[in-house]
Amino acid sequence: MFNSFGNILKLTTFGESHGIAIGGVIDGFPAGIKVDFDAVQQELNRRKPGQSKIVTQRKEPDTVEFLSGIFEGFTTGASIGFIIKNTNQKSKDYNHNTDVYRPSHADYTYDKKYGIRDHRGGGRTSARETANWVVAGALAKQLINHIKINAFTSSVGDVFMSKPYQELDFSKTESTIVRCPDEASAKEMIDKIQEIRKAGDTIGGTITCVVQNVPVGLGEPIFQKLHAALGQAMLSINAVKGFEFGSGFCGAKMKGSEHNDLFNPDGTTQSNLSGGIQGGISNGMDIYFRVAFKPVATIMQNQTTTNSKGEATEIHGKGRHDPCVVPRAVPIVEAMTAMVLADFWLMNKMRK
Amino acid sequence: MFNSFGNILKLTTFGESHGIAIGGVIDGFPAGIKVDFDAVQQELNRRKPGQSKIVTQRKEPDTVEFLSGIFEGFTTGASIGFIIKNTNQKSKDYNHNTDVYRPSHADYTYDKKYGIRDHRGGGRTSARETANWVVAGALAKQLINHIKINAFTSSVGDVFMSKPYQELDFSKTESTIVRCPDEASAKEMIDKIQEIRKAGDTIGGTITCVVQNVPVGLGEPIFQKLHAALGQAMLSINAVKGFEFGSGFCGAKMKGSEHNDLFNPDGTTQSNLSGGIQGGISNGMDIYFRVAFKPVATIMQNQTTTNSKGEATEIHGKGRHDPCVVPRAVPIVEAMTAMVLADFWLMNKMRK
Amino acid sequence: MFNSFGNILKLTTFGESHGIAIGGVIDGFPAGIKVDFDAVQQELNRRKPGQSKIVTQRKEPDTVEFLSGIFEGFTTGASIGFIIKNTNQKSKDYNHNTDVYRPSHADYTYDKKYGIRDHRGGGRTSARETANWVVAGALAKQLINHIKINAFTSSVGDVFMSKPYQELDFSKTESTIVRCPDEASAKEMIDKIQEIRKAGDTIGGTITCVVQNVPVGLGEPIFQKLHAALGQAMLSINAVKGFEFGSGFCGAKMKGSEHNDLFNPDGTTQSNLSGGIQGGISNGMDIYFRVAFKPVATIMQNQTTTNSKGEATEIHGKGRHDPCVVPRAVPIVEAMTAMVLADFWLMNKMRK
Amino acid sequence: MFNSFGNILKLTTFGESHGIAIGGVIDGFPAGIKVDFDAVQQELNRRKPGQSKIVTQRKEPDTVEFLSGIFEGFTTGASIGFIIKNTNQKSKDYNHNTDVYRPSHADYTYDKKYGIRDHRGGGRTSARETANWVVAGALAKQLINHIKINAFTSSVGDVFMSKPYQELDFSKTESTIVRCPDEASAKEMIDKIQEIRKAGDTIGGTITCVVQNVPVGLGEPIFQKLHAALGQAMLSINAVKGFEFGSGFCGAKMKGSEHNDLFNPDGTTQSNLSGGIQGGISNGMDIYFRVAFKPVATIMQNQTTTNSKGEATEIHGKGRHDPCVVPRAVPIVEAMTAMVLADFWLMNKMRK
Repeated sequence: MFNSFGNILKLTTFGESHGIAIGGVIDGFPAGIKVDFDAVQQELNRRKPGQSKIVTQRKEPDTVEFLSGIFEGFTTGASIGFIIKNTNQKSKDYNHNTDVYRPSHADYTYDKKYGIRDHRGGGRTSARETANWVVAGALAKQLINHIKINAFTSSVGDVFMSKPYQELDFSKTESTIVRCPDEASAKEMIDKIQEIRKAGDTIGGTITCVVQNVPVGLGEPIFQKLHAALGQAMLSINAVKGFEFGSGFCGAKMKGSEHNDLFNPDGTTQSNLSGGIQGGISNGMDIYFRVAFKPVATIMQNQTTTNSKGEATEIHGKGRHDPCVVPRAVPIVEAMTAMVLADFWLMNKMRK
Repeated sequence: MFNSFGNILKLTTFGESHGIAIGGVIDGFPAGIKVDFDAVQQELNRRKPGQSKIVTQRKEPDTVEFLSGIFEGFTTGASIGFIIKNTNQKSKDYNHNTDVYRPSHADYTYDKKYGIRDHRGGGRTSARETANWVVAGALAKQLINHIKINAFTSSVGDVFMSKPYQELDFSKTESTIVRCPDEASAKEMIDKIQEIRKAGDTIGGTITCVVQNVPVGLGEPIFQKLHAALGQAMLSINAVKGFEFGSGFCGAKMKGSEHNDLFNPDGTTQSNLSGGIQGGISNGMDIYFRVAFKPVATIMQNQTTTNSKGEATEIHGKGRHDPCVVPRAVPIVEAMTAMVLADFWLMNKMRK
Repeated sequence: MFNSFGNILKLTTFGESHGIAIGGVIDGFPAGIKVDFDAVQQELNRRKPGQSKIVTQRKEPDTVEFLSGIFEGFTTGASIGFIIKNTNQKSKDYNHNTDVYRPSHADYTYDKKYGIRDHRGGGRTSARETANWVVAGALAKQLINHIKINAFTSSVGDVFMSKPYQELDFSKTESTIVRCPDEASAKEMIDKIQEIRKAGDTIGGTITCVVQNVPVGLGEPIFQKLHAALGQAMLSINAVKGFEFGSGFCGAKMKGSEHNDLFNPDGTTQSNLSGGIQGGISNGMDIYFRVAFKPVATIMQNQTTTNSKGEATEIHGKGRHDPCVVPRAVPIVEAMTAMVLADFWLMNKMRK
Repeated sequence: MFNSFGNILKLTTFGESHGIAIGGVIDGFPAGIKVDFDAVQQELNRRKPGQSKIVTQRKEPDTVEFLSGIFEGFTTGASIGFIIKNTNQKSKDYNHNTDVYRPSHADYTYDKKYGIRDHRGGGRTSARETANWVVAGALAKQLINHIKINAFTSSVGDVFMSKPYQELDFSKTESTIVRCPDEASAKEMIDKIQEIRKAGDTIGGTITCVVQNVPVGLGEPIFQKLHAALGQAMLSINAVKGFEFGSGFCGAKMKGSEHNDLFNPDGTTQSNLSGGIQGGISNGMDIYFRVAFKPVATIMQNQTTTNSKGEATEIHGKGRHDPCVVPRAVPIVEAMTAMVLADFWLMNKMRK
């Protein structure tokens, strides 16, 4: 219940950052789908640490091993088990934290909730968990490869990529290490992150995701509205503080006469402030949404805090951490989007 | 699956705006809780149409009838069935729309998904459904009455209530018809809505919700993080386009050194940009979040659109609609918040 | 969770025997299915009390009212809400039991579990609940009307209908009040029940259910095997003590060389001890299973028992009870079978 | 959905008999429970092949590796991932079956359902899967170690152990290789199995399970009745054809005056034909039930069958198979019983 995601296409995960391995089970994946293993690994590589100068310098190969559900290159309809071994867990980087609650981490809440603390790092709360999601999402992408999912970094701190997404060339997203398809903005963002890193600090940002070629009819009212499922998925990603789709928070300032998307006779709409979803169901227009990430909590500066005995103390970040999670979160946003869409696409087949 | 909300405390609903009745089943509600029926009706009255000059002038008594699960004033542990009869459905207000897709409504997507259209109004997509949620939420509030849930209108169009919530007196929320506890802002908001209504237009807005006295430990990682569940709940409400908690989208512009909430020795934090939730689990500080509502789609102006035969046509709103949904959505936000918290509170008891 | 049945086609119910109404919500029912309301009522009539001399003489009209999800005679894809009003609840028949635990009823366990007791009769434990199931099952039958479901009384006490089901004419099931299609056996069973009733006693029995024209491929391993879902459904019916399918308990005495169903080249099998299900999935042969019902616990004789204060006392059944539940349970078995099959039939469509 | 078992304590599994590994994820297991790893392995040893002369002579070490959720010997509240590597999969034993449908196996139904066949053996349908269940069940047993679960072989073919369970010494179950605590019966059963094996045949049997020290109040009406959940669990085990609890099928022949369990003033009952469950809820008396297993389908004899091209052919069992699954199924029955009880025990805590 708590470690599962999805309705029909269901991912159940396990694993801590400093355990033997993380992994998961993908249930409900249809039989007979050819698996492109390289594409899966490619997605993991986009997420993995050490890939560029603006992300954490930890090195983890992040190699997925599929244990079941795939036979001679095709899915069999059985549950797909997989693991990713943890090869580079330097617990000693973290050992100084044994008893101290790191500010704006989950140390305190986990300790209070579970009465036990895995002090080898984030444990289950580590964003390492999202490698599991990327594996599942990569398979989901292959299942619904007629739908195009493109996420990109749309802001870092106060550096915003301000072009409308229609003017972007998504094939360029991967050509900049910050994963912003607009080169000028990308350069500014990279500079910002490097400046922040030098200060021993971290910075937040946003990711925008655009989904194209979506069939009409995905989404299940009342409580599985497509945008509610996407929101829940995005809010499950570590460090996310907000989600908006279509006109989003801007829409709250608008008038109905400005906001309504007038229909063309073919069912398309003249504008798309709805963000491709009406009444919780896709209408065939582009779906787009924006996700807010807070700055990483681990900073290379002194901070006052407390420990489990209630003593005031100081903490100074060590370890190898990201100055900004946004570039590495782009494939995670895409993966969870793919999981949601594939799930709803399967559910929709029951209606034919 | 599709018409149910919650994990343990589960609401399953049915009903269309122009059918005989709407209603639902509340499952998992503990036995032995004394039910305050007046308090339930009170919440329904906060949501119902016709309550003030700035909302729709439809009159619906919205009287709930409990059919089961309550005996001699106490819950029995059995599922609680209830209905709310539809007494004032003027289908003729809507009949002119039989075949026309209203802009930014769900007519088109429902027709395409289900191949059938209940043209008596919004059918299942009508916000009338949320009366069911208010009933369930009112019971949930009684279950967790040690937790204080206060939602209020924080903006209407470009009129923002800018005080920090700590300076507000929540007992004043109900004293203004727009449900903003700051009188000066409330007056501006009311003026704005009246101006918009006169123009035959509608306007969006935001609701802020503050939850106090939350026990530490509510929330179930990884995929039932407390804020993800709240987000999913809010995004299920009609017209919602965005959700943010704690620092939200502002947090995406901040540095870690600014954003981190430093711990006091007693486990409280000096700031609360986390919004009372860390790692998906409540930390005992106030939970607060903000919800964006788009303007109502039905406007009293001419709009071009299409019909089910793909013919271009015009539509002019009739019927009795809200110029701004936000004032009536305040109790809905509270109700869904109560449902989420009660659900997680029950789940947390399994850990003792 | 607790009052819901099914995966995709999901029934959620409420209601007590002596409350205002019972009812439910059917979720996941596809759109565009024409509803035969008479056929639904017909199924309710098969279950209702007072229909013959061998069942309880209580009179309840058991009229279902559909409140949503059906428009102009067709399902809309929205959740289907319905209620059945309780019109003839003579609480006074039961009031003498206020504080006494009736032997082999659920009074004691409910009181201990919930700490509260609805002493107006069985409350939520009453088999009246199964009227809800019959409504849902009647709709499910219409959804999968290509599949033929035939249940019948196969034994009452030690009177067994010993013909193989292949020799029976299922169209005769309804022509005997005990619902056994073999006239000679039916007569014996009726005599047995009348003899038992005169003695103020009750008697158990079994129902056999045969499902024909089942498509190959229904059933979801590992934990939603078709027979496991059927078993869970049957064991949910009041008074059921056992379930077996295909060779059942007899199969446990057999050798593999006797038990194996050899394949014909067309995929059919020469024998069918598998009972139409292999590896949890239907193989296209007839599905058949048998359900054991214990005797009704309420007897018109003196019994020693205890009350909630732990005092020894006596009880003597009053009220109008069935001497044997089996005849009225036949439509319930069919209804739950239809629910399971329709659910799996919908799930299977996701694989096309 | 399909590969998960349980409500709150949830096991999700994966793996084929001839893949790299099988395994699973246990979700909802409470934090702070000390894990007895030896006890887990002990249970696996009871299930594993090659343990005695009356079971298959395949050798598999069946060593479980826990990958997460346990830290310094205690559960952490995080999901518990585990794998069991397949070390001795002799695919060549099975290769001759590539295209042939083995009688009374799931080859045909899987092929028809999924359109793809893992011909390396049973694939996902192999009873090897149940090793996963034994791991989860062993942990569940440790969680509810105040409840005593004792399963044993109660018949093999027509050899029945006829003593009432109250006269048995459960500590002797493991002292006979057939797992029957009555030595005389055990000897007869073993002889029967050896005779059957020599004939190249297989034989069915039954397992009885007795659960003692059960707290009052486990079970969740209406659709999670304790016995329905147990039945669904047992019917999920490979080769199971029937389930009965308490009086079971015998109860269907009885009169109410014989069958009713009269209460003693302390709430215990004078008899226990209810089998410790009334209205779906445990009443504190012993729970007991019986499970029917058909004979293993693979026999060392010629059988006629068909292949995927619809050609008649012959098959002759090879490989190393069990002549009777019952002795090895005893720990599986216990494991699934433990899973169900632990799940309901956790759910019941929500009511305090």
